[in-house]
Amino acid sequence: MSLKKSWVTSANSADHPFPLNNLPYGVFSTADGDPRCGVAIGDMILDMEAAESTGLIALADYPLFDVPFWNEVMDQGPAVWAALRDRLTALLAQGSAEQAKVEPLLVAAADADLHMPFGVSEYTDFYAGMQHAKNMGAILRGSPDLPANWLHIPIGYNGRASSVVVSGTEIHRPNGQTKAPDADMPSFGPSKRLDIELEMGAIVGTGSELGQPITVDEADAMIFGYVLLNDWSARDIQGWEYQPLGPFQGKAFGTSISPWIVTAAALESFRAPTPPREKELLPYLNGSKDGLYDIELEVLMQPEGAEKASSIAKTNYNRMYYSAAEQLCHHASGGCEMSPGDLLGSGTISGAERSEFGSLMELSWAGREPFTLDTGETRGFIEDGDTLTLRGNARGDGFTIGFGDCTGKILPAKTWG
Amino acid sequence: MSLKKSWVTSANSADHPFPLNNLPYGVFSTADGDPRCGVAIGDMILDMEAAESTGLIALADYPLFDVPFWNEVMDQGPAVWAALRDRLTALLAQGSAEQAKVEPLLVAAADADLHMPFGVSEYTDFYAGMQHAKNMGAILRGSPDLPANWLHIPIGYNGRASSVVVSGTEIHRPNGQTKAPDADMPSFGPSKRLDIELEMGAIVGTGSELGQPITVDEADAMIFGYVLLNDWSARDIQGWEYQPLGPFQGKAFGTSISPWIVTAAALESFRAPTPPREKELLPYLNGSKDGLYDIELEVLMQPEGAEKASSIAKTNYNRMYYSAAEQLCHHASGGCEMSPGDLLGSGTISGAERSEFGSLMELSWAGREPFTLDTGETRGFIEDGDTLTLRGNARGDGFTIGFGDCTGKILPAKTWG
Repeated sequence: MSLKKSWVTSANSADHPFPLNNLPYGVFSTADGDPRCGVAIGDMILDMEAAESTGLIALADYPLFDVPFWNEVMDQGPAVWAALRDRLTALLAQGSAEQAKVEPLLVAAADADLHMPFGVSEYTDFYAGMQHAKNMGAILRGSPDLPANWLHIPIGYNGRASSVVVSGTEIHRPNGQTKAPDADMPSFGPSKRLDIELEMGAIVGTGSELGQPITVDEADAMIFGYVLLNDWSARDIQGWEYQPLGPFQGKAFGTSISPWIVTAAALESFRAPTPPREKELLPYLNGSKDGLYDIELEVLMQPEGAEKASSIAKTNYNRMYYSAAEQLCHHASGGCEMSPGDLLGSGTISGAERSEFGSLMELSWAGREPFTLDTGETRGFIEDGDTLTLRGNARGDGFTIGFGDCTGKILPAKTWG
Repeated sequence: MSLKKSWVTSANSADHPFPLNNLPYGVFSTADGDPRCGVAIGDMILDMEAAESTGLIALADYPLFDVPFWNEVMDQGPAVWAALRDRLTALLAQGSAEQAKVEPLLVAAADADLHMPFGVSEYTDFYAGMQHAKNMGAILRGSPDLPANWLHIPIGYNGRASSVVVSGTEIHRPNGQTKAPDADMPSFGPSKRLDIELEMGAIVGTGSELGQPITVDEADAMIFGYVLLNDWSARDIQGWEYQPLGPFQGKAFGTSISPWIVTAAALESFRAPTPPREKELLPYLNGSKDGLYDIELEVLMQPEGAEKASSIAKTNYNRMYYSAAEQLCHHASGGCEMSPGDLLGSGTISGAERSEFGSLMELSWAGREPFTLDTGETRGFIEDGDTLTLRGNARGDGFTIGFGDCTGKILPAKTWG
């Protein structure tokens, strides 16, 4: 596939994140309007509420775009998703007969604020990167050996949907219980080991029924799109609380996502296989499609007052061991009802080299080997005032499918008010 | 406190679960009407949508009861909760001047179907019963020693809200991965160790802000009410999956709750203290009120075709080590935003004696010591066709605050369809 040209000329650049090939879905507001659905094209946003009310977009007998979330569209199912993408492509393509009607409905992205693009029904986080799992084992348990179930199960746990926020939302450092290995008693206070996790988030677009398992191929077709996801983590809180029932307050204070839903359709030509299975998967986890995507990922860190951010890690989503479709299939395997708007975190994405590690825990080897920023400052974990940014791009032949930054600044911990 | 008398005479019995002292909140439907909010009084249900539309109940400038859930009322906050309870008490009390207006709005409970009383925003399950934690340690790890953090943290994990269902909903046995200790590979199929967990569910009525911790007393005031809760558990799936990130598919196929929300106000006179702390709690976990309640609990089991259910366990909610208010305070301690409609499972409630254990895992000691039902049949775990029922009552002076049964029948596992 090559660049599809649009009459929105800013979209016709090989490096622009939002060419006609992408068409990601978000929610935006302007000085004169409430949050509403929009589609990014070049430097502009197509106002979908206006496009629907003027009759340019007509997908259902009732309005889908008069609400500040994309869940209504998800509910319509894959045939409508495809029809919407086809219609948007036709409206915005170079030579479109309807350019004159569409042009007044474009808003400059520079004039818009972005909001959560969908309502998160429930949030599940996985642990599907092998290098990350080995690193965490080596750091925490002194051995890179994988847990006994790791090569058989896409390990996941339920996270907290209420604390998923859109890029740009500031995050307060969490308080929590921690205990030093040699202390008699735990203490309570601000986390001293605040971290990120570089992940992709898969958004479930159509649901499943309670009690009903699904296949990997069915799961693949249920996925509406993807976002970048930073699963902020307080390693000291997590370390003391997580036995025996898993992470809880160490993960519940914030999860940031990028503001644009990049559809599975836009990523189709970037499909990539999972790596060779080290042990054969049970048959229910086998699907017919390549389930990962070739998406270049980068983490940047910017201390308070620094002029620019330092790149601290680069990796690729195709490094994962399990795909989102495999994870979703496993999620429903016991009969768990899946809902439109469910968000599945991929797990931390780490490549083989230190420079490819997707968390500060790994980059600084638990703080024992701090890394150096462009400013000359060093970091083991996050300090108050630091801004962390995730960036993601799939590179095609003369075009880019970008995600838009997933960024968040850390503020000091709050106390009781 | 003694029995408050109602002109609905069926409510004036010492043993009836729904006297005027109780006034629990549910959602019901009749042959001629959609699901709507109702309040149980004796053998009748007060139709709240009708009471509001006729002007007998007026709590806000817009309707609260034209929807099939109580979340709108929760959103109003504690002052409105108290005003509603006062108004209902006045309307239904013996000698009420408005009896003639209210009487036509009563529906016979026998003619009504009950539905989920509220929308579950998110579901969190705790592990706050000491006897249960010791039993599970002894069974699974060969030692009743508590985890190192147990006496300091009300341990909890995020569960799955989409699979919370109302009493009476049939549950399919889950499929899942299991591995025998001596097997090389796991296998996939229906769980062979299907279990219950006898719990109370606390319903969060008012929320908290992201980043903002709350005190135990604030948490106590945020709780709208309680239900009985059966956290169905597949022990074999859970046993293979839960390291290192906690329970997932072993818990995600169903959680049943009783159909009536018994308000915290109705339970006020049954407050009971938590047991003496074996280690002092950190200050943030200290509150000024007794946080447990004296509620008698019972588990019944009825095989397919048996004429009646056998009582298999009796215990009391006052056996728990941590209260719901302490759990909620801890839940928000890292800044996790809590929402109206969040459901907190207490953790399995087990007393000191075998007859007081709140799960089949404990009652049959992991299936090694099956127990005998009144029919003469024995059980280690649940068989297809078995119906499990939880029952709960707080006993006052001449009155009972009942919860209504929490029941569920197990159907065979489904396969891919």
